[in-house]
Amino acid sequence: MEGGDERSGRVGEDPEFGLPFFIVAVWYTSTKLASVIAENYGEKSQTDVESQHGKPFAVGAADSAPSSGVSSTNKSNWKLKSVVTLALTLLTSSQAILIVWSKRAGKYDYSVTTANFSVEALKCTLSLAALVRIWKSHGVTADNTLSTSFEEVNVYPIPALLYLIKNLLQYYIFAYVDAPAYQILKNLNIISTGVLYRIILKKKLSEIQWAAFILLCAGCTTAQLNSTSDRVLQTPFQGWVMAIVMALLSGFAGVYTEAIIKKRPSRNINVQNFWLYVFGMIFNLVAICIQDYDEVMNKGFFHGYSFITVCMVLNHALSGIAVSMVMKYADNIVKVYSTSVAMLLTAVVSVFLFGFHLSLAFFLGSMVVSVSVYLHSIGKPQPQK
Amino acid sequence: MEGGDERSGRVGEDPEFGLPFFIVAVWYTSTKLASVIAENYGEKSQTDVESQHGKPFAVGAADSAPSSGVSSTNKSNWKLKSVVTLALTLLTSSQAILIVWSKRAGKYDYSVTTANFSVEALKCTLSLAALVRIWKSHGVTADNTLSTSFEEVNVYPIPALLYLIKNLLQYYIFAYVDAPAYQILKNLNIISTGVLYRIILKKKLSEIQWAAFILLCAGCTTAQLNSTSDRVLQTPFQGWVMAIVMALLSGFAGVYTEAIIKKRPSRNINVQNFWLYVFGMIFNLVAICIQDYDEVMNKGFFHGYSFITVCMVLNHALSGIAVSMVMKYADNIVKVYSTSVAMLLTAVVSVFLFGFHLSLAFFLGSMVVSVSVYLHSIGKPQPQK
Repeated sequence: MEGGDERSGRVGEDPEFGLPFFIVAVWYTSTKLASVIAENYGEKSQTDVESQHGKPFAVGAADSAPSSGVSSTNKSNWKLKSVVTLALTLLTSSQAILIVWSKRAGKYDYSVTTANFSVEALKCTLSLAALVRIWKSHGVTADNTLSTSFEEVNVYPIPALLYLIKNLLQYYIFAYVDAPAYQILKNLNIISTGVLYRIILKKKLSEIQWAAFILLCAGCTTAQLNSTSDRVLQTPFQGWVMAIVMALLSGFAGVYTEAIIKKRPSRNINVQNFWLYVFGMIFNLVAICIQDYDEVMNKGFFHGYSFITVCMVLNHALSGIAVSMVMKYADNIVKVYSTSVAMLLTAVVSVFLFGFHLSLAFFLGSMVVSVSVYLHSIGKPQPQK
Repeated sequence: MEGGDERSGRVGEDPEFGLPFFIVAVWYTSTKLASVIAENYGEKSQTDVESQHGKPFAVGAADSAPSSGVSSTNKSNWKLKSVVTLALTLLTSSQAILIVWSKRAGKYDYSVTTANFSVEALKCTLSLAALVRIWKSHGVTADNTLSTSFEEVNVYPIPALLYLIKNLLQYYIFAYVDAPAYQILKNLNIISTGVLYRIILKKKLSEIQWAAFILLCAGCTTAQLNSTSDRVLQTPFQGWVMAIVMALLSGFAGVYTEAIIKKRPSRNINVQNFWLYVFGMIFNLVAICIQDYDEVMNKGFFHGYSFITVCMVLNHALSGIAVSMVMKYADNIVKVYSTSVAMLLTAVVSVFLFGFHLSLAFFLGSMVVSVSVYLHSIGKPQPQK
């Protein structure tokens, strides 16, 4: 304990210490994620043969659950699920660290809408690059071709549209709620995601898992408590309504994305991502025209971009791809747990990087979140097999 | 919501408003508890016949579980359990309100040790009064006679001795820990009671119930968080050791009392209480001699007693009896939940009585405690029947 204090104190004096540590972490996560993207195509045709000695057994297992529609075995699916979940957790966590870091380094004068567009464009490019690699090694098939039908593609704009509306609302909610209170209210996302997951995807959570979900929301909020948090209780009625609407929009966008991706399980995830991100680019272009048209025209698209801005764009792009992967191989519930754990991880890492002090509320909140994760894992409803 | 604020604001200006409300609440609880004490003897011989129409069925149920050793039926036992638990919750809650009230009314110059002795003497008198009533109506039997064997009575001093040591330690812990931090550390009792309950009484809690117990501890602590709570993290090592030792002493005393009372299920609870409280009186007399001998000799035994002091003695005596009842008809786990819920109840009642404001931490803590109560109830291990 004393050793920890000493170290955090020393590091706190030199925030730039974080740089090499951070770059290594992001580099590692990106390579890992890239290998998952590349492996993904081979999953059905090649990886099963090459990396799994128990193929006859694996085929047998797949035969016994023919309705699942997913051709990968439970084992490789579990591995994939773990890797993408871990990637999402680390990327989300480093995202928050980048934000703290950029705040410490001073304010940057870039426009948020162009950064969002860059993120979508980068994700689109990465998906296309992964596809090109797959086409080269395995040829073009019905599952990995970019050409699509109106019937397949017509639902893809919906999540992008929902996020656009949510991001525009974000500008108005600050008339009723201050920034720290908004951070607290954002935890309503957890509950809205759970409810919409149940309603839209019709997947059941057990009673214990619902209890775990309420605890996750309470635990995350507790961990974020500080001396100004009580102000959230003075949020006016309009603020509550907007916060709830935003939570529902964000929950709906997440659950709807999962529904789109899961609808065609054999379709290559990079194709699905490509179409999602194309519409993301289009809607973010609309946002640029609405909010920052003059600024972009006068100062240029990339005005005010710094090294940290580029890091943040890269990080958001990789996180976005990780989210899609989690939707494909796991679900929104895993995503919510992953981002919640990332929040705790961020705080712990910040102790070492920035000399932050952890509060008693943080320990209590982390304890509740840990119990929630445990309860979620033991509280699985009876398997449908 | 606005109505609530208005009311609490108005009441806050006049703290004396609480008086009639409080007296009615305590009066009601006392009568209810008195009727439970009086009913208790009849439980075996009379209540079953008079108040239960389904007696043949009830006898059948008792026959099917002959090893339980408790002759009351499940139904009347459940009723008794609920009433004593409710009584304990209300009494503990009003105890805390009395403390706030006495603080507001100014400091009182009575010695704590004489008040503790008075509580033990009053409990002893009440038990004796209940016994006399039972002897008059039903005669003296082996189960309700005061005369006892050394083998039965030799364990009775142990809980009183443990509480004495704990109370003496309390004076020393404040050298390392301030009062608000001590309030936070007292929540360690919850964990120690659970662990000792498992070890000494060898009763199993399911995994979910253990999770619920950790949540109860985290939730109660969260509900008590305020701007000074973080100081608890600076508690020196000696402070932690003493806090843990005190939690173990208090947990051990509670669990040991349950073991003593449950060892002879057919023995009348008032006889068991009488002997427990006799030793309580003796040990508190020792405490008076150690700490307040001069003061009592110079100023008299009841110096500085006010109306509120008398209320507090009465309340502690009734709570003490309620604790014994809970030990007899329920267990230490129920006691811990009961006193935790009482803590939340106190805070809510204080909003109306004293115009307190509830914090966000309180809401989050209450939410976690509620989920914990729910999980405890659904997480019962497989019944032993």
